[in-house]
Amino acid sequence: MLEQLISRLDIVATGQQLHRLVSDLYPICRSISGDGVRQTLDRLRQEIPLEIQEIPSGTDVFDWKIPREWNINDAYIKDSRGVRIVDFNRSNLHVVSYSVPVRKKVSLEELKSHLFTIPDQPDWIPYRTSYYNETWGFCITHNQLRSMTDREYEVCIDSTLEDGHLTYGECFFPGETRDEILISNHICHPSLANDNLAGIAISSLLAQMLASAPRRYSYRFLFVPGTIGSITWLCLHEAQVANIRHGIVLACAGDAGCPTYKRSRQGNAEIDRAMIQILKESGGSHEILDFSPYGYDERQYCSPGFDLPVGCFMRTPHSQYPEYHTSADDLSFVKAASLGDSLAKCLSAIAILEGNRTYLNQNPKCEPQLGKRGLYSSFGGATDRKQREMAMLWVLNYSDGKNSLLDICEKSRLPFARVREAAVALEEHGLLKEASAAD
Amino acid sequence: MLEQLISRLDIVATGQQLHRLVSDLYPICRSISGDGVRQTLDRLRQEIPLEIQEIPSGTDVFDWKIPREWNINDAYIKDSRGVRIVDFNRSNLHVVSYSVPVRKKVSLEELKSHLFTIPDQPDWIPYRTSYYNETWGFCITHNQLRSMTDREYEVCIDSTLEDGHLTYGECFFPGETRDEILISNHICHPSLANDNLAGIAISSLLAQMLASAPRRYSYRFLFVPGTIGSITWLCLHEAQVANIRHGIVLACAGDAGCPTYKRSRQGNAEIDRAMIQILKESGGSHEILDFSPYGYDERQYCSPGFDLPVGCFMRTPHSQYPEYHTSADDLSFVKAASLGDSLAKCLSAIAILEGNRTYLNQNPKCEPQLGKRGLYSSFGGATDRKQREMAMLWVLNYSDGKNSLLDICEKSRLPFARVREAAVALEEHGLLKEASAAD
Amino acid sequence: MLEQLISRLDIVATGQQLHRLVSDLYPICRSISGDGVRQTLDRLRQEIPLEIQEIPSGTDVFDWKIPREWNINDAYIKDSRGVRIVDFNRSNLHVVSYSVPVRKKVSLEELKSHLFTIPDQPDWIPYRTSYYNETWGFCITHNQLRSMTDREYEVCIDSTLEDGHLTYGECFFPGETRDEILISNHICHPSLANDNLAGIAISSLLAQMLASAPRRYSYRFLFVPGTIGSITWLCLHEAQVANIRHGIVLACAGDAGCPTYKRSRQGNAEIDRAMIQILKESGGSHEILDFSPYGYDERQYCSPGFDLPVGCFMRTPHSQYPEYHTSADDLSFVKAASLGDSLAKCLSAIAILEGNRTYLNQNPKCEPQLGKRGLYSSFGGATDRKQREMAMLWVLNYSDGKNSLLDICEKSRLPFARVREAAVALEEHGLLKEASAAD
Repeated sequence: MLEQLISRLDIVATGQQLHRLVSDLYPICRSISGDGVRQTLDRLRQEIPLEIQEIPSGTDVFDWKIPREWNINDAYIKDSRGVRIVDFNRSNLHVVSYSVPVRKKVSLEELKSHLFTIPDQPDWIPYRTSYYNETWGFCITHNQLRSMTDREYEVCIDSTLEDGHLTYGECFFPGETRDEILISNHICHPSLANDNLAGIAISSLLAQMLASAPRRYSYRFLFVPGTIGSITWLCLHEAQVANIRHGIVLACAGDAGCPTYKRSRQGNAEIDRAMIQILKESGGSHEILDFSPYGYDERQYCSPGFDLPVGCFMRTPHSQYPEYHTSADDLSFVKAASLGDSLAKCLSAIAILEGNRTYLNQNPKCEPQLGKRGLYSSFGGATDRKQREMAMLWVLNYSDGKNSLLDICEKSRLPFARVREAAVALEEHGLLKEASAAD
Repeated sequence: MLEQLISRLDIVATGQQLHRLVSDLYPICRSISGDGVRQTLDRLRQEIPLEIQEIPSGTDVFDWKIPREWNINDAYIKDSRGVRIVDFNRSNLHVVSYSVPVRKKVSLEELKSHLFTIPDQPDWIPYRTSYYNETWGFCITHNQLRSMTDREYEVCIDSTLEDGHLTYGECFFPGETRDEILISNHICHPSLANDNLAGIAISSLLAQMLASAPRRYSYRFLFVPGTIGSITWLCLHEAQVANIRHGIVLACAGDAGCPTYKRSRQGNAEIDRAMIQILKESGGSHEILDFSPYGYDERQYCSPGFDLPVGCFMRTPHSQYPEYHTSADDLSFVKAASLGDSLAKCLSAIAILEGNRTYLNQNPKCEPQLGKRGLYSSFGGATDRKQREMAMLWVLNYSDGKNSLLDICEKSRLPFARVREAAVALEEHGLLKEASAAD
Repeated sequence: MLEQLISRLDIVATGQQLHRLVSDLYPICRSISGDGVRQTLDRLRQEIPLEIQEIPSGTDVFDWKIPREWNINDAYIKDSRGVRIVDFNRSNLHVVSYSVPVRKKVSLEELKSHLFTIPDQPDWIPYRTSYYNETWGFCITHNQLRSMTDREYEVCIDSTLEDGHLTYGECFFPGETRDEILISNHICHPSLANDNLAGIAISSLLAQMLASAPRRYSYRFLFVPGTIGSITWLCLHEAQVANIRHGIVLACAGDAGCPTYKRSRQGNAEIDRAMIQILKESGGSHEILDFSPYGYDERQYCSPGFDLPVGCFMRTPHSQYPEYHTSADDLSFVKAASLGDSLAKCLSAIAILEGNRTYLNQNPKCEPQLGKRGLYSSFGGATDRKQREMAMLWVLNYSDGKNSLLDICEKSRLPFARVREAAVALEEHGLLKEASAAD
């Protein structure tokens, strides 16, 4: 039972385990294609049974085409004395992702048009990409830029941009039903810890836990390059999309900010309500955002032709923290406690989806006599007794075939686990029966 | 007309009359069955034409069985010198209701497991029951407990628990239609003034007033033991339940707190809206609570198999005042002013139900010329003129067959009496016609 | 394009132009009939192609009858020395509108029953009418009243009340469709600047602007006497009423207060949403009022037999400013800046109605690749780029045939002009297609 998994969860230890996985993945230079993605997926295969898919460059996927594959060996800027003043080996953020190969001497003036800095944060390196516009560039700190006074520099980007493949990983666990829960992450960012190694690590551990749990739902975990990866998956699996009942995109889930949930386009889908229920139950600060067609791969899952019930779980939303898409999104920016908490919240929301049922009170006229069945004290300690009794009364009163346990939680403001526990006890005593779709 | 009854109501005198009835009923030792209930109903028969029903022990009522009948003559605890230190004759709260007979000497230690006190309120006696679990017990003040130092005491409960009857009272006034308004009270509590002699007294006077009033609706007043009584009535009258259009449970309606209305399970039934309209019109502080499946007999009326539009009128909700279910819920805790106000508010809500209609404007295209019909000054004093004119304009504009007068009140924020007065005047001038169900 | 008209609008100059027109119309003595109305309409014909309609007295219009026509040449009160102490030529407010002719000597006492003042504002003259009750009266300042000490006065009202006509003006511009936008004003008030010369002037300039603009909708401007005028128009054009898709009543639209919009009876009609969108976009303070069946001619347009989507645009609502219906509602009370702003807001709301469309995303599965179409930079300056991109994403995501551009504005909180600009660009690139009614 997921409830037991959750109650036994050591959030501190789990957070540390997640942080170690983030640390392992951090040095790899990822992009939307190339060996960095393959290395990342290889590392994840040590944790979970991941299938790796390779889609050839040039394949049409809806309105898009799989781009050429990009790989990089080395890159630097040398000053007039031949000293590497910018070195890809020190940070893979230094090279604009998808930069075409270049090796030449350039004047400082020409070079400057290929340099990107953050004047407001002079010690941070920005993160830049140019996937669909062939060019090259370097990202450096603003202090580096200021110290560059030579008239000429040597630039070298030892990269390849050639026909190859788009690579992604997929992990599927069948459940009692074909209805699926989708967990999706983007895996295309280089050394950025929160965006999105945090999500990748949490997703990986969720997969590990669900692999061995009893599952009402089937689970599909996707580790895909952002945008092009989810578009590719949707295009190649269009027939299977109808199985997706609930979904979460995990992004920026490890910083110190409070948990944030962005609703699916549907706005009040079961996943939305389950996530919000968990955030409310926690009693802690949290944010709930309406859907907007901007963000991560929920943009694709929630495009109007699919309109899937897929929300996005994060902590501080992208672009609302200054470290976003800079070298300051590093291993210290991601907190073990936040990683552990994010995992626990996702798992708890999944437990709601797994446990949510709609029942029919078998004794709907007046209350049944709970006392004669020993239900007033049959389970739990004395302290919780009042809440347990209330949960039974709420479940009995609203189990009219129209209200699910989650509906009853929302009405009663009782925790889902308590309401479900009451339902299980009442069902055992023949007072509830699951409503069929026909009811 | 109920409106006239209300406008002539002397709330102070009525409150005092209600308090006298509460005082008359206060000494009687009631429980869910037995002679205390019969004495209570006999006293009420001096006020209203009550029919008394007796249902044999052992009768099945839905999931329940009518319990054996409990009666008590005397009870005491004597100390080692033979002095009655706890005496049923001083307070009928001293005995746990439905205590089985006992007469023996017990050690202090054994006795303590049968004693109930309120440590936080050392001068108050708690109220306890044990209807479905055969045991005995005494409720005493915590100060009494502290002064008990003898090694041995004599306990006596001279009670009987035998096959007999469950007793309840019912009072029915037919109206123009078979549609009923139900007013229900629990009559099973011993010397507790607010819970529920206040409700019983108000209900009794409401019945007296409605007996001689013109009635669109039929009225049914129930004076029943809590839970088992309403379950019994519902079980024995299942075929009639469909006639119940609106209902109020009256409970804890006499303390100094502000009026509180708990919505029916339906949430926005006409009774809910009428009660809330009255509370808002009053301009005074008040509370409106959502339905919850806990409280008084609305639990049974609002069980999912019935789902009747029955709300609960009270002042301070049960268990939200420290005097609740203690000897401090006495005659001084119940205020004449509150009793009078509660009655006036219930009667005003009933007047809304009686007067609420849906009309069709007979001149729906543009406004009719009110001036040529003398309607701008045909009724009322000059001070209210503006509000009267506004009421006519609101009634005309929204009498499209879709909005009742109560709907129009909610939109216009005008008092119901004003809106109804306008409708009556407009109908007299042929500008309105009652909408039939077919419209 | 209306958008261009709006962006080129010089609000200061326009406000001054409007104030000049108000000033021209101010001296005329208007009432619900008579030559003052004709002079007013004649002046407006210098601005717009107005058709003038004359409806004979005695004509039945729904529940009303066209009254006799009232005209006035002179009026005064002379004191015992023959001095005109009250003179119609100084202010046409001095005579109660529709006063019957009178010429006689009266005692001060008798005269007082025909005098109206505002004790709280002793220097202001009130505005009074008596259309349907034949009498005569004078409106004077309270200070004038206090200084009247003669025993006898000569009163003269040189008026006529005879069979004649009700006069109103109408101006119609056909558009691409027969669906109409109605703009209506009352023209029956004498020298009151805000009520309603402000509305008349704004309406007149709106008509001038729309006359030469491309028009999806047809436009009907009505300049009618309040109440009887709109009733007359509705009665005589009942068959055409169904063409009215949106409407605005303009009243009290020139004082210094913030803009106020009163919703139509439908409550959330497209005109309501367009007006509210404009008020919100402005970022300035504004008021939004629910419909009530009191105010100006929206009372007739929104009567239940018509229930047209007609709201009311104003600044400070009638009777909420002390100058209302007094001589203090003069040319200084109306501000050029407010007049210009009111016109701009109405025109902007009309631009929303003209531009609002519902589209179908032609690439509904995942996002289309905007970059390859140059859509990320194809229009506008760099500063607005982010907002332009967001607008495209919102339009694409919600163009599912169920959401209009106005719906998308409300969801995205983007300005309408931005959303429409995005839709136009996307449509040009074949990514959107207008949804037909059948979709």
